[in-house]
Amino acid sequence: MYNLLKGKRGIIFGALDENSIAWKTAERVFEEGGTFVLTNSPAAMRLGSLQELASKTNSQIIAADVTLVSDLENLIEKAQLILGGKLDFVLHSIGMSVNVRKKNHYIDEDYDFTQKGWDVSALSFHKLMQTLYKKDAMNEWGSIVALSYIAAQRVFPDYNDMADNKAYLESVGRSFGYFFGKDKKVRVNTISQSPTPTRAGNGVKGFEEFISFSEKMAPLGNASAADCADYIITLFSDLTQKVTMQNLFHDGGFSNVGVSQAVLETFSKYNENSSNTR
Amino acid sequence: MYNLLKGKRGIIFGALDENSIAWKTAERVFEEGGTFVLTNSPAAMRLGSLQELASKTNSQIIAADVTLVSDLENLIEKAQLILGGKLDFVLHSIGMSVNVRKKNHYIDEDYDFTQKGWDVSALSFHKLMQTLYKKDAMNEWGSIVALSYIAAQRVFPDYNDMADNKAYLESVGRSFGYFFGKDKKVRVNTISQSPTPTRAGNGVKGFEEFISFSEKMAPLGNASAADCADYIITLFSDLTQKVTMQNLFHDGGFSNVGVSQAVLETFSKYNENSSNTR
Amino acid sequence: MYNLLKGKRGIIFGALDENSIAWKTAERVFEEGGTFVLTNSPAAMRLGSLQELASKTNSQIIAADVTLVSDLENLIEKAQLILGGKLDFVLHSIGMSVNVRKKNHYIDEDYDFTQKGWDVSALSFHKLMQTLYKKDAMNEWGSIVALSYIAAQRVFPDYNDMADNKAYLESVGRSFGYFFGKDKKVRVNTISQSPTPTRAGNGVKGFEEFISFSEKMAPLGNASAADCADYIITLFSDLTQKVTMQNLFHDGGFSNVGVSQAVLETFSKYNENSSNTR
Amino acid sequence: MYNLLKGKRGIIFGALDENSIAWKTAERVFEEGGTFVLTNSPAAMRLGSLQELASKTNSQIIAADVTLVSDLENLIEKAQLILGGKLDFVLHSIGMSVNVRKKNHYIDEDYDFTQKGWDVSALSFHKLMQTLYKKDAMNEWGSIVALSYIAAQRVFPDYNDMADNKAYLESVGRSFGYFFGKDKKVRVNTISQSPTPTRAGNGVKGFEEFISFSEKMAPLGNASAADCADYIITLFSDLTQKVTMQNLFHDGGFSNVGVSQAVLETFSKYNENSSNTR
Repeated sequence: MYNLLKGKRGIIFGALDENSIAWKTAERVFEEGGTFVLTNSPAAMRLGSLQELASKTNSQIIAADVTLVSDLENLIEKAQLILGGKLDFVLHSIGMSVNVRKKNHYIDEDYDFTQKGWDVSALSFHKLMQTLYKKDAMNEWGSIVALSYIAAQRVFPDYNDMADNKAYLESVGRSFGYFFGKDKKVRVNTISQSPTPTRAGNGVKGFEEFISFSEKMAPLGNASAADCADYIITLFSDLTQKVTMQNLFHDGGFSNVGVSQAVLETFSKYNENSSNTR
Repeated sequence: MYNLLKGKRGIIFGALDENSIAWKTAERVFEEGGTFVLTNSPAAMRLGSLQELASKTNSQIIAADVTLVSDLENLIEKAQLILGGKLDFVLHSIGMSVNVRKKNHYIDEDYDFTQKGWDVSALSFHKLMQTLYKKDAMNEWGSIVALSYIAAQRVFPDYNDMADNKAYLESVGRSFGYFFGKDKKVRVNTISQSPTPTRAGNGVKGFEEFISFSEKMAPLGNASAADCADYIITLFSDLTQKVTMQNLFHDGGFSNVGVSQAVLETFSKYNENSSNTR
Repeated sequence: MYNLLKGKRGIIFGALDENSIAWKTAERVFEEGGTFVLTNSPAAMRLGSLQELASKTNSQIIAADVTLVSDLENLIEKAQLILGGKLDFVLHSIGMSVNVRKKNHYIDEDYDFTQKGWDVSALSFHKLMQTLYKKDAMNEWGSIVALSYIAAQRVFPDYNDMADNKAYLESVGRSFGYFFGKDKKVRVNTISQSPTPTRAGNGVKGFEEFISFSEKMAPLGNASAADCADYIITLFSDLTQKVTMQNLFHDGGFSNVGVSQAVLETFSKYNENSSNTR
Repeated sequence: MYNLLKGKRGIIFGALDENSIAWKTAERVFEEGGTFVLTNSPAAMRLGSLQELASKTNSQIIAADVTLVSDLENLIEKAQLILGGKLDFVLHSIGMSVNVRKKNHYIDEDYDFTQKGWDVSALSFHKLMQTLYKKDAMNEWGSIVALSYIAAQRVFPDYNDMADNKAYLESVGRSFGYFFGKDKKVRVNTISQSPTPTRAGNGVKGFEEFISFSEKMAPLGNASAADCADYIITLFSDLTQKVTMQNLFHDGGFSNVGVSQAVLETFSKYNENSSNTR
C-alpha cells in the first residue's frame, strides 16, 4: 500500500496457515513490494498450506530444519540466488515446546524435551544469524526480527519452558545484534507480541481464557496477527534504521498495565457472587 | 534479635500509627540495637500517636515539614546532637496525593494539587538528601531508604498521580545515589513494597479489592508492614554495603507474575457464571 | 515519500531551528502527506526561525506556553479549526532545566528552578493530554509521542534534574496512555532518543564528549534528528496501532550495551599511556 | 557474627578455592550458625582445595555433576541425612562456557559447546530445583539463590554465550520461583554480581581491563566475593521472606549508571592525548 519495501529481499520463517503471524507478514511484505523466500520445517510443511501462500505472493519455498546449520546454509545460499542478491530482512517466527505438547508440567520437565524445545525455539535464532553473518548474506541496514512473548519477563504458569526459551531468544537478539550492528550495520530486534490464536498458541493449556484475560487487561485490546504484520513492515522499512537490540512490546499496552479496571471489576464481582451464595 | 544495628544512628520519617511501615521499622530498629529520632509533619503528628512509639523506643520526636529545607536542616542538626554523632540510616516513608484525597480522577487533575503532592511525595526525597549531603550528616557506608510502589512501572488506574510521583522518587534515588555513593560512600535505595493497609493505602479507591487481587497474584502473598520492617533492617545493616541505586521489589513475587493460576481461575469462573445466568 | 500520513492532522511542539527533532519531524510529516500546526513558547519563538519552517510546510503557527492550560486549550481549539477536524498525531518535544542553565549541580538544586523545569518538561505532557482528552480532540487510533532520554533509567551525571523530569514524563505517558487507550483508542508512547546536538542538548555540560562516548558505545552509532523524524513517522502511521504505553529506545543499540569493544579499548589504551608517562 | 542462620541447613554449590564466592559464602554461613554440605563436580574438586574449606566449616563434601539428575538426587538425599532434616538454603554458583574456554568468538560458536555450557550453567538450575521440589526437600520459607551477571540484560562482548545462559538462568529463577513460592513457600532469587576475580571470571578475555572499567563506573566500586557472601546471608536469613522471583543487582551501583564522571574523563583525556600526538 505504501511501497515501503520496494526492492527489498528476504526470508520468512514459520508460516503454517493463514492464522500465522508469518503468513500475514508475507502477505503484507508482498503488498509493500518486497520479495522473499518462504521456509518452514519439512514436518510443519506437511501440516500447513504453504504452497497456497507461495502462489499468492509469487515466492518460492525452501524447506529447512532450523536446528541444522547445513539446512540454514543451503537456504541462505539458495535464497540469494533466487532473489538475485543479498538479503534486507529476515523474520524468525518459530517456537515449539515438546514439554507443552506432551503435557509435562514446568516442575516435571523431561530434559530431552527441554533441550529439543530450546534448540528449535531459541538456539535456532543464533544458528540463523551466525550463518547469515558468516555468509555475509545481509545488506547494510538490513533488519532481522524474531517473535517473542512477555513470558520472558514475567511468569504465565502454563507457558512452561517456552518462557525460558524466549528469555534465551531475546538475549541472543541483543548479543548478536551488537556484532551484527557493529560489523555489518544490520539491526536485530525481537517483538514481544500479544497472545495470538495461531496453531502454536492454541497448544498452550487454558489458552482461550488467557486470551480473554489479556484482552481485558490491554487498553487497546490484544494485537492481532495482522496488526503484527503491519508492525513488522515498519521494522523492515528504512524508517527504523537506528532501532536495534530491542525487545519491542506489541500488545495493546498489556505489558505496562498492573491491573485494568475491567479485570479488577470482574475479580470483585466474582468475589461478591461467591460470598452471596455461601 | 540479632544486634544487626548495634551502635547505628538514624532518622525515621513517616510513622503515624501502628499500621505504618515506619512504625514497624522503628520497633525493629530498636530491637536490633539502633537509636533514632522520629519525625513527621505537624499535621500528621496530630492525627497519629507518635508519642507512644517514642516512649517504647526511647526516642525523641522532631516535627518537620519535608517540603521546607529549613525544617530539614533543623531536624538533621538536632538529630545529630541528640544521637551523638553522624547518621547511619534514614527512612523516607512519605506519600500523599491531594488529587486522590479530593477524588480527582487522573484525567481531571487539579494542577495545584498535583504540584503539592509531587513536592511532598517525591521532591521531598531530593530535599532530604541534599540537606544530608550538604551538612555532611551521613557516616560512610550509611544507608538511605525510601518506600515506593510498582505503579512507578505499571499502571494501576486508581493510584492516580502517585504513580508519577513514585517514578520521580525512584529517579531521585538513582540520581542522588550516584553522587552520595561516589562522594560519601553512602548507599541509596527504594523498596517497592506490596500494597499495605496503612492509613495512606486506605485512602486509595477500591483499595480492599486491590489488596485481595494482589494477594492472589503473589506466590508468597503480599508482604506486610512487619515483613517490610525486617527487610529494611537488612538494608540498614552492614551486610548490604554494595547494594545501591536499586529499586527493590518486596512483594511476595507480584512484580514478576504475568498472571497467577488463582487469578486466571477466578476470572474464568466469573465468566462462566455470567454466561450461565444470561 | 510513502504517503504514510496522507489525510492526517496534528500538532508539533518544540521546533526551534533546523537542528531540532521537531523541525525534522515537521518536514518529514509534510513529505508524507500530513498537515499540522506548529507551536512553541513565545520565548522560544523569538530565538528560532519557526516562520521559515511554517512556510516550507504550508503550516500555521500558534504560540503556547505549555505550563498554561488556557494556552493549550486555545491551541487545540484553533488547530482543529485550521486543520478542519480532530487530530491524528501530536509530538511533544519539550524540555528545559533552569538548574542546568544556571549551572546548579544536581546536589545543589534551587527548588524554584527544579519546579519550573518539572512543570515545563514533564507536567506539561500531562496538561497537554488532559486538555486533548477533555476536548475530545483526538481521532480514534490517533498517536501521541513525547521525546525522552535514557537518563530516566540510568545516571548520566551532567543531565541533572532533567533525569527526574524524564522519569516523570515517561510515567505520565504510561498512566495517561492507559486512559487514552481504553476510552478513546488513542496510543501514547515516548521515544528515548540518542543524545542529539540540538540547542537543548548543547546546553548540557560536557555534551560533546558525551556525544562521542555514546557514538562509540552504540553499535549503529547515535541516531540523528533526521533518523528520529523517520521513526516518529512510523509511530504516527496506521502501521503501529497496537503499540502503546511504551518507552521506545531509538539509539543505535546504546541502551542494551554494557560496554563496547571500542570504549573498552580506548579506556585500556589511556590507562597504558598514563602508566607509561608516569 | 549475628547468628542470622542459627539452626539452618543447606547445600552450597561451586566452591573451588578461596577466591570463590561460594567459598566466602560457606565461611560466612558457618559464622552465622548454619550447617551445610559442600558440593562441586568431580573435575572441579580435583582443581580446587575443597577439603580445606570442609575442615574449617565442619562440613562434608558430596560430589555431583549438576547435569545429571541422578547425581542431584543422591546429593539431596544424603545432604538431608547428614544435616538431620530438610533444607533451608541452597546456593547455585555454577557457570562454565566451553566456547569461552576454547576461544570461540560469539559469532563463531560450536553448538555442541554451546549446549554443554547451557546445560551446566543454566539448565542445571532447573534440574536442581525440580529435584528439590519433587523430593520435597526444602523447609517452608527456605531460600534458593543463584549467581548471575548483568550480561543477561546488556551486551559485554567478551562474555560470549554466558550472557544467553545467564538470561536463561534468571528466567528459570522466576519461573520455578512462582511454583516453589505458591506450593512450598520457598523463595528463589538470582544475584547479579559485579565482575569478580574468581577462577571462572579470569577465564574471560580482557577480564582485568573490564574489572577496572567496572570499578570506575560503579559509585561504590565493584562488590567483592566477601561482600557478596554478606549479601547472600541476608537472603538466606528470615528477614527477607517476601523477596522472591527477583534478580538483585549487587554491584556498587554499576547497573544504573549510564556513564560515570570518572569514565567520561578518562575517555576525554585519551581523545585529547591522541589528537595531540597526531
